[in-house]
Amino acid sequence: MRDDDDDFGPTASRKKEKNPSQSQSSRDRAARPRADGGMRIVVPLQGVVQGRGGLVLGSLIPCALFYFLQLYIKRNRPPPATAPQAPPGSPPGSASAATGNASSTPSSIHRSYSRGLLTPRAGLPALSARGAFVRSGDEDSLYYAGLRRCADDPYHPASNPDGIINLGLAENHLSLDLVGRWMEKHAGAARLDGLAGAGEEMRDLTIRGLATYQPYDGILALKMALAGFMRQIMHESVSFDPSQMVITSGATPAMEILSFCIADPGNAFLVPSPYYPGWDRDIKWRTGVELIPVPCRSTDNFNISITALEIAYKQAKKRGVRVRGVLISNPSNPTGGIVPRETLHDLLEFAADKNIHFISDEIFAGSTYGSDKFISVAEVVDELEDYDKGRVHIIYGLSKDLSLAGFRVGVIYSYNENIVSAAAKLARFSSVSAPTQRLLISMLSDQKFISEYLKVNRERLQKMCHLFVNALKQVGIECFKSSGGFYCWADMSRYIRSYSEKGERKLWDRLLEEAKVNVTPGSSCHCIEPGWFRCCFTALSEEDIPVVVERLRKVTDSHK
Amino acid sequence: MRDDDDDFGPTASRKKEKNPSQSQSSRDRAARPRADGGMRIVVPLQGVVQGRGGLVLGSLIPCALFYFLQLYIKRNRPPPATAPQAPPGSPPGSASAATGNASSTPSSIHRSYSRGLLTPRAGLPALSARGAFVRSGDEDSLYYAGLRRCADDPYHPASNPDGIINLGLAENHLSLDLVGRWMEKHAGAARLDGLAGAGEEMRDLTIRGLATYQPYDGILALKMALAGFMRQIMHESVSFDPSQMVITSGATPAMEILSFCIADPGNAFLVPSPYYPGWDRDIKWRTGVELIPVPCRSTDNFNISITALEIAYKQAKKRGVRVRGVLISNPSNPTGGIVPRETLHDLLEFAADKNIHFISDEIFAGSTYGSDKFISVAEVVDELEDYDKGRVHIIYGLSKDLSLAGFRVGVIYSYNENIVSAAAKLARFSSVSAPTQRLLISMLSDQKFISEYLKVNRERLQKMCHLFVNALKQVGIECFKSSGGFYCWADMSRYIRSYSEKGERKLWDRLLEEAKVNVTPGSSCHCIEPGWFRCCFTALSEEDIPVVVERLRKVTDSHK
Repeated sequence: MRDDDDDFGPTASRKKEKNPSQSQSSRDRAARPRADGGMRIVVPLQGVVQGRGGLVLGSLIPCALFYFLQLYIKRNRPPPATAPQAPPGSPPGSASAATGNASSTPSSIHRSYSRGLLTPRAGLPALSARGAFVRSGDEDSLYYAGLRRCADDPYHPASNPDGIINLGLAENHLSLDLVGRWMEKHAGAARLDGLAGAGEEMRDLTIRGLATYQPYDGILALKMALAGFMRQIMHESVSFDPSQMVITSGATPAMEILSFCIADPGNAFLVPSPYYPGWDRDIKWRTGVELIPVPCRSTDNFNISITALEIAYKQAKKRGVRVRGVLISNPSNPTGGIVPRETLHDLLEFAADKNIHFISDEIFAGSTYGSDKFISVAEVVDELEDYDKGRVHIIYGLSKDLSLAGFRVGVIYSYNENIVSAAAKLARFSSVSAPTQRLLISMLSDQKFISEYLKVNRERLQKMCHLFVNALKQVGIECFKSSGGFYCWADMSRYIRSYSEKGERKLWDRLLEEAKVNVTPGSSCHCIEPGWFRCCFTALSEEDIPVVVERLRKVTDSHK
Repeated sequence: MRDDDDDFGPTASRKKEKNPSQSQSSRDRAARPRADGGMRIVVPLQGVVQGRGGLVLGSLIPCALFYFLQLYIKRNRPPPATAPQAPPGSPPGSASAATGNASSTPSSIHRSYSRGLLTPRAGLPALSARGAFVRSGDEDSLYYAGLRRCADDPYHPASNPDGIINLGLAENHLSLDLVGRWMEKHAGAARLDGLAGAGEEMRDLTIRGLATYQPYDGILALKMALAGFMRQIMHESVSFDPSQMVITSGATPAMEILSFCIADPGNAFLVPSPYYPGWDRDIKWRTGVELIPVPCRSTDNFNISITALEIAYKQAKKRGVRVRGVLISNPSNPTGGIVPRETLHDLLEFAADKNIHFISDEIFAGSTYGSDKFISVAEVVDELEDYDKGRVHIIYGLSKDLSLAGFRVGVIYSYNENIVSAAAKLARFSSVSAPTQRLLISMLSDQKFISEYLKVNRERLQKMCHLFVNALKQVGIECFKSSGGFYCWADMSRYIRSYSEKGERKLWDRLLEEAKVNVTPGSSCHCIEPGWFRCCFTALSEEDIPVVVERLRKVTDSHK
């Protein structure tokens, strides 16, 4: 994406010239304030202040010369540094920010909005610049490229044995049978409680609860059920208040809405990396918020370093970018590590010290299986005396822990009532349909099912992780010791030919095209050490594992 | 909102000064490019070009004077005209646009983002400016104020007979019994087809189709079912192509996503007014797109005037605002009128002439009952030879025509593949949950039910409209002749004391507080003639009508 973007910058500006109405108007707009401030004042007053009489030639002519000189310079200045090149929707400072840090992805995303101007079909109004960017915005990401290849040619042991095995999507198929069985037994009854059998009035109430407008941010009964479920998963000692909860159609919009509420375009979050590749799109696309990766290192077990955060914070400040928060995932996506209690303490302290927000994405909280115990920030924040909780926000959802990705249910849990109130209003753009909410109320209230599911699912995750990690060992690939999530974080650096992002990309390509296995390269997660790959094992069956091993061997053997 | 905003503008800027780090940094950023372009070039070269030797006093000293003069002028310029006052996220030209049209709501919305800076709680990081704006953004709208009052104190004939009767929400309860009966019979079976009874493999397939990730922009089978349904409603001769469709969680995000794709922040749509009050929030809040109301008049039967559109287009251009499209609702919300075929022709021609987009919101297409036949733009565009369809987009949904507001299902239907492709990617923020999609596939495929429902629902709408309009006549209120929608557009101008927005607001207030009836005032719909109110009658039962009449009489009688 970065290289690509550098290619697009100048091209876009050249093309721009060909669309006179548009480039003209945007240039006019951008030029106007500067003209007021600079030229118009300088030029007409020049003669007056410099003296009178014989100075006509000495002042008026140079004035005219200057006027045209400035005009020339302004028109021919190289694009990236000039204000008119700032993309639509970018904040006043973004152009200079982009100059200060030309290689950073955040600002380059904004810059490449201008890509939209590249493809005006004759006789048709163009897409907006940002719309055009979105249309082709993820085409350079290996993460999405791999997923698209899998969609085109998915492996199936019987019907498509030569298809691509997808280890790129964090989806859990290990416990779908449990959910299926519950649905079979209860789903009809759950949604239709009161429709059949009961009196007409009851039926009327039930259909009204399904068909008419419900609160956009979620039905209260579902919030209550979710609060109970989160408590069960996070920690029994922590209680969640339904009034601090906003329900959205998936964790993706939950993250976007929260970002929208706490950061303005051009503001930034510090994000310990490697981080979930989807954030680059979920957070940056529409909110214009910048993500600043703060590298964690393998030698440090990918632990979050407060020192690195401090440095990144100062650097951002130096280049005029306002940092609004720290964003982590816990359990970590993609490493599967659990953030230790002390680190959470330190992070909360860091956030308080800088007076910024702290966002913890805990969507895999119930999908842990290792020896390290998961600790929610909700638990830690309760322990701290006098800590102002209003800066702390948790993202949650049912896609991972209940294997219900297709249900599209996400949660913003915030200790800040203003954020809750703003997010609830924005939930109108991302509401969960009422039938699904009613169904989930029943499912989450079935304590017996939930407890059994969580227990069995953890056991299956652990078993599968064990099998998969051992299988990778057979071909000489070691994994980071993970304790949660649907993936392991595999070190394949010994199989890359050049120790660089390029080398990693080549290996990824060989894995996809020769071994027909799709994995997520570390570079997509902004990992600074090449050779790490995220491999999701929860969409596999045990029988698939030998197939994966055999396929990987093709690539690893040829390396020797 | 306008008055309010004018109050906030200066206050906000004054407050801003108190936050030195922030105002300083934003001022620096904005000042930097101008300094490059203007001063630095002029000042150092001055002496060189103007001659040498004796001109030192005549050039260097004036240079210094100018330098400080410019500095002084720049620092002390009144806030609204200066670049640093442009709100975060606003495009380069928005500051000047706001000055050019200070009273227009679109730009003022952006300006009042700065309201966010007004309420920083000590010791807590603030919301983003836009987040803070959203939190309190609709508090001044009578439309939302009325709905909130109804939620607090809803009328019920038995349990709360003194509560407020809500004529403000376009929700149809007239045919819920039909939907309820279908659900009772089919819902369990529909969703669980294959779960119970069938073999294990089939069950596995079924639960995968529910629980795992589905295409964010909608399951293909639902698109096909919706294409069939839209064809049935719009016109049998028109066919809709599922591949041109993006399904979202309601028409609200459909409109937002489409706006995002075709307009950049600061761009505008021309919108014949009166228009649906929700658009001011749905479109403007997050996309930063401006809506320019283009007034239709009662003397002209609220028909859309191409001349008025021409004028508005030119005015917008004059103040540097780029118009990206025309947006209409058909049947019209709030008048209930049907847009005639010739007007659609003219609108399409206007859009082609200006090379802009054309958006038709046809969400009430199946809820027509009058003598005027509804004509979809899909039908008209098919008739026009050589018309470039790529500029035409239709918004649809199931909230109105199938009474399924709680299901949150909206549709973007676009003839532009690039828009479809960008919108499909943004649908990840607004997906419909899979169980609901599966349920709707069954419901929409039940031809017998759908045909019967549409027929009966139209009859009931017509009957209720007739009863309600006649009831209003009893208290001397005449309605515009509507042919579709859930509301009538009532002329109460004879009951307002001063023929102004203020007079209308007073009447609205009396209706709400004395008569306990909530209606939507024309001003919320940007109607330029005071005294018109939108009254939704589809959430009433026939028994409620005499109660409404009696309550209205309280206000109308006291006027005599």
